[in-house]
Amino acid sequence: MTGKIESRLEELGVELPSAAAPAANYVPFYISGQQLFISGQLPFIDGGPEYKGKVGAEVDVETAQQAARACATNILAQAKTALGDLDRIVQFIRLGGFVNATPDFTDHPEVINGASNFLVDVLGDKGRHTRFAVGVGSLPRGVAVEIDALIAIE
Amino acid sequence: MTGKIESRLEELGVELPSAAAPAANYVPFYISGQQLFISGQLPFIDGGPEYKGKVGAEVDVETAQQAARACATNILAQAKTALGDLDRIVQFIRLGGFVNATPDFTDHPEVINGASNFLVDVLGDKGRHTRFAVGVGSLPRGVAVEIDALIAIE
Amino acid sequence: MTGKIESRLEELGVELPSAAAPAANYVPFYISGQQLFISGQLPFIDGGPEYKGKVGAEVDVETAQQAARACATNILAQAKTALGDLDRIVQFIRLGGFVNATPDFTDHPEVINGASNFLVDVLGDKGRHTRFAVGVGSLPRGVAVEIDALIAIE
Repeated sequence: MTGKIESRLEELGVELPSAAAPAANYVPFYISGQQLFISGQLPFIDGGPEYKGKVGAEVDVETAQQAARACATNILAQAKTALGDLDRIVQFIRLGGFVNATPDFTDHPEVINGASNFLVDVLGDKGRHTRFAVGVGSLPRGVAVEIDALIAIE
Repeated sequence: MTGKIESRLEELGVELPSAAAPAANYVPFYISGQQLFISGQLPFIDGGPEYKGKVGAEVDVETAQQAARACATNILAQAKTALGDLDRIVQFIRLGGFVNATPDFTDHPEVINGASNFLVDVLGDKGRHTRFAVGVGSLPRGVAVEIDALIAIE
Repeated sequence: MTGKIESRLEELGVELPSAAAPAANYVPFYISGQQLFISGQLPFIDGGPEYKGKVGAEVDVETAQQAARACATNILAQAKTALGDLDRIVQFIRLGGFVNATPDFTDHPEVINGASNFLVDVLGDKGRHTRFAVGVGSLPRGVAVEIDALIAIE
């Protein structure tokens, strides 16, 4: 039997990638009581495009939104591995949104909306979250966006 | 009847602005058990000054401290909307302080003190918090400071 | 009697520095239920080297890893002050890793591994954590790395 959230993902034509394994002495997720912590996710999806570059220079806002959506997809992939069933998600509590941007870039909220809109599209009100959106000077592997997450679970 | 914290705000001559509504698929605050999460707040207050620009270049430390205080004021405005009564605050747990700074700027703690000092002024020991203070390369709308918060509540 | 974790620190030849006192209206740690929050720690250790400069320019990855390890050492020093006994640590939940890097730097994960590897070396599986690693444009006092932490305790 497939859960509600996974049916919704299917409806949207989203296939969850295999969750990236930790590359070092850290873990991709951790459950503490009824909180699921997800490590910062990069916008890499097997076989998909690679979202590298500076937003405001070689990466435009629309492409950066797709990068943010790819990060959110990887967050869901980690949550699926952590929980088994995505229907155990009670509420997305918080996203931390880091945009690899030029010093004069100002549309960080629009970029991170690529993740926020996707999560609400998939999870409905359970996908609404608090967040910050900031512009960092560089990111791992030169990616355009990195996002971490905190999720309330049952 | 006005609560203690709101009386203190009045004493300090601080009027809480109306809490900014979410501009997208995220929420300005979320209560998870006894924790209140507040989204990253920008230093905009209705009718007040706009704190834009790079700290270390066109924005000096004193002005950046006022920007940090404006962020903290908006955090309290969101908390008031979330809780009804600010006296439900048990303790500020954590502030995340992002300063839009030049690469050679080094006085981030002094800037975020603008928020820390204000919160202790208003809330006394309940306003003391853990925090980080870092220098980011850019921020939404070009503002000088962005701060998010986690608050223990009853 | 010395705890297990402190015996392990001794074995590794690590002496915990005295925990830095708060320089302003914030606190270095806060215990909320079974969670210990630690403020962003800088890589300063009494009498040790000072890790200042931009990673990717005058600071190389190996030196930046030592800076990250120094931040983690200061996190343990704060935890010792907060808990009395480091054996009360149940699990490191999360590290927030900020690297003061040049715009084209891409090896942030390798830098923060300096902290992650150290924590697993000291604490074993209890030291494994979720994390983010991002590149910021500037940091307090010009340091190369700043790290904050969330720890599950008993």
